[in-house]
Amino acid sequence: MAVLNATHDPGLRSWVSTANLPDADFPIQNLPFAVFRRTGSGESFRGGVAIGDCVLDLGALHGLDPFRGSAAPALGACAAPRLNAFMALGEEAAGALRAALSQALRADSPDAQHLRSLLVPQHAVEYRVAADVGDYTDFYTSIHHALAVGRLFRPDNPLLPNYKWVPIAYHGRASSIRPSGQEFARPVGQVFPPAATAPQLAATRRLDYELEVGVFIGRGTELGTRVPLAAAESHVFGLCLLNDWSARDVQSWEYQPLGPFLSKNFATTVSPWVVTLEALAPFRAPWSRPAGEPAPLPYLDDAALRAGGAIDLNLEVWLDTARMRAAGVPPARMSHSNFRDSWWSVAQMVAHHTLGGCNLRAGDLFGSGTQSGPAADQAGSLLELSAGGQRPVRLPGGEQRTFLEDGDRVRLRGWCERPGYVRIGLGECVATVLPASALPDAAT
Amino acid sequence: MAVLNATHDPGLRSWVSTANLPDADFPIQNLPFAVFRRTGSGESFRGGVAIGDCVLDLGALHGLDPFRGSAAPALGACAAPRLNAFMALGEEAAGALRAALSQALRADSPDAQHLRSLLVPQHAVEYRVAADVGDYTDFYTSIHHALAVGRLFRPDNPLLPNYKWVPIAYHGRASSIRPSGQEFARPVGQVFPPAATAPQLAATRRLDYELEVGVFIGRGTELGTRVPLAAAESHVFGLCLLNDWSARDVQSWEYQPLGPFLSKNFATTVSPWVVTLEALAPFRAPWSRPAGEPAPLPYLDDAALRAGGAIDLNLEVWLDTARMRAAGVPPARMSHSNFRDSWWSVAQMVAHHTLGGCNLRAGDLFGSGTQSGPAADQAGSLLELSAGGQRPVRLPGGEQRTFLEDGDRVRLRGWCERPGYVRIGLGECVATVLPASALPDAAT
Repeated sequence: MAVLNATHDPGLRSWVSTANLPDADFPIQNLPFAVFRRTGSGESFRGGVAIGDCVLDLGALHGLDPFRGSAAPALGACAAPRLNAFMALGEEAAGALRAALSQALRADSPDAQHLRSLLVPQHAVEYRVAADVGDYTDFYTSIHHALAVGRLFRPDNPLLPNYKWVPIAYHGRASSIRPSGQEFARPVGQVFPPAATAPQLAATRRLDYELEVGVFIGRGTELGTRVPLAAAESHVFGLCLLNDWSARDVQSWEYQPLGPFLSKNFATTVSPWVVTLEALAPFRAPWSRPAGEPAPLPYLDDAALRAGGAIDLNLEVWLDTARMRAAGVPPARMSHSNFRDSWWSVAQMVAHHTLGGCNLRAGDLFGSGTQSGPAADQAGSLLELSAGGQRPVRLPGGEQRTFLEDGDRVRLRGWCERPGYVRIGLGECVATVLPASALPDAAT
Repeated sequence: MAVLNATHDPGLRSWVSTANLPDADFPIQNLPFAVFRRTGSGESFRGGVAIGDCVLDLGALHGLDPFRGSAAPALGACAAPRLNAFMALGEEAAGALRAALSQALRADSPDAQHLRSLLVPQHAVEYRVAADVGDYTDFYTSIHHALAVGRLFRPDNPLLPNYKWVPIAYHGRASSIRPSGQEFARPVGQVFPPAATAPQLAATRRLDYELEVGVFIGRGTELGTRVPLAAAESHVFGLCLLNDWSARDVQSWEYQPLGPFLSKNFATTVSPWVVTLEALAPFRAPWSRPAGEPAPLPYLDDAALRAGGAIDLNLEVWLDTARMRAAGVPPARMSHSNFRDSWWSVAQMVAHHTLGGCNLRAGDLFGSGTQSGPAADQAGSLLELSAGGQRPVRLPGGEQRTFLEDGDRVRLRGWCERPGYVRIGLGECVATVLPASALPDAAT
């Protein structure tokens, strides 16, 4: 479990004044990492750290060779066009770099004048996915989501008997992961509508978002090696937001017996900033299960998990439609949930993933699965909110939705807050649905 | 569809005499590609082409700058430590390089003396996976396998209604793919034996092989772009053998609702040599379905598919046990099948994979799914051969097997043959099962 250190000092303020605003996602206590360049500049991508509404250019900072000790090679790794090598250095290296950056960015830093030229406004940059994702694994850790979806897909058997024992997951598609800001065409797929006599090709009519937490792996593991639960978080670099777009009509037709395939591999969107577990340390929460539920098998259970294995991370989905934007109607909050309610923790995901010897590589990405809470307005997908399309959701401005329509823009947000500590934000994960391309006719 | 060209001339012979033997896997008409180095040398890996029992070192050949035209950059790409860039050049570049290599290796080549020093015996090299596999997708294209497995997992509902319409697939794990020669420990996992009252941790008792064809992607595609069936094979670099190791007891407990996960991600073994579609052109076969079966949807059907979409590729599984090797008992042939019997073709896999816009990258790998034929001795897995463990298979030497035991070595073979043409082999895919590591106690 990460331990609180000086970078959490709630009294710390930065010479970057927007970092000191009470609702800032990126105060000096956060210092998350991303890969960026100036929008449309043709510059090389390189690492950056967020501070207030700016990015501190770590490629340029590396050129100044400002740090000594283990922060120096960590900074060097951040100058690369992807952060895999930095993530591979492990939590100590990232911690050393965050401590050095915290010193350099604090209000009384002697370097303030010197470093101001290395700041780029966030509104003037574009991002890429922080790591080259070797493998992407999507878990299914919210029992509230599993139950709600199970009721729709298998009314007689909503929660399968393995759910409470196995951290269920499937391998996802790495090639189609894109950073926030993505626009993608509504996918075409095979569907089998209830009234039809044979499957047919169609643009999906049941396009959905899924509100997830992304987990980037730091230090990798060797093939054949198990990671014990107690060591699991030492292999985690940090968290982001993740939208696992899903075509529900394609999914229900294709998913048996091997799981979702084309229904989910057309696009996955992640927020650009990766927030380290160290920055989230003040927001750890006990991990527990309701009375009467089975304890996890021993390889997924220990005292540290029960003391602070969960993360008190607020999550929200916001939606605006093309018509709302044209009419100046502000986005609607569709739902809110908390990662604390997850049935499985981040450490349990890592320990289970490596149980049979599967190796992890730095920059691998886990999705948590849709994070839905116990209440009706805590559902992390439209499938749940609309009860499988039966109960349209009313939007401000007069429209309603069962599933997403063209022009819809979905924004995920996430943040931690706790009295006595500075708020830590994950930023935003935004993407927009474009119309489907024309259906293929015959085999062309 | 690939067209026959001069590299197929059955009269061609090589100055590498072992390439001219009638049962050679790698005659001059084959010229498959791999990545290799001298065993234990610490040399850089680089591309090689197989000829007879040797590897022609393409890194060293590139140093001589022997070719002109599009063969030259293709050869340059083969000097790299992975073949992704070469694969990305597309079939024309690979064809130009194969034509130039064919000229250089033919019996009357003036370069024979010059090139002999660039040959390395295959017994003296080690391989790595030919490409850095960005994403690995495993299909399920044998209806005979799907039926046999379905009868065991779902006796009341063996073939799901989507099977005949959707080329079913799931995303697999790229990080644990290893080349032939792999040794791996029997995986530990969660299982729920029939007599138990709760799941438990155990080394798998139902470890199985799966006989598959691997498909390496050549030229990639853009996110959001569909590949029509007619263009699908232009995105395929070539074929290899693939063993999709499976822990059946883990699989049956974990696989619902999202498909196999730890039951298959602990190891996947591929043969080192990738045989181009061009080399396989003489062995194309009509693609058809039995009378009365539904035609594929139009995006998966065209005249070229029906004329020659299948590949007449013989496949075999051989097994030897530690006791058989100690006693000098030769390996046993467990089964034989033919890729021609697949319900879905290579082109259909590519067209379906990109239907919703999912992008492919050069070096991506598809598995065909277990290739079982219609007869009982054509089953590509022990699960099928032993009827789910109910009917042990007798081995020469007196042992019997339901599933794999420690020390068992599995060898896949594949080759094409046809009167009037030179036999083309895929080589071998071999791996050995080691004992499981100790079970974790509690959370350590």
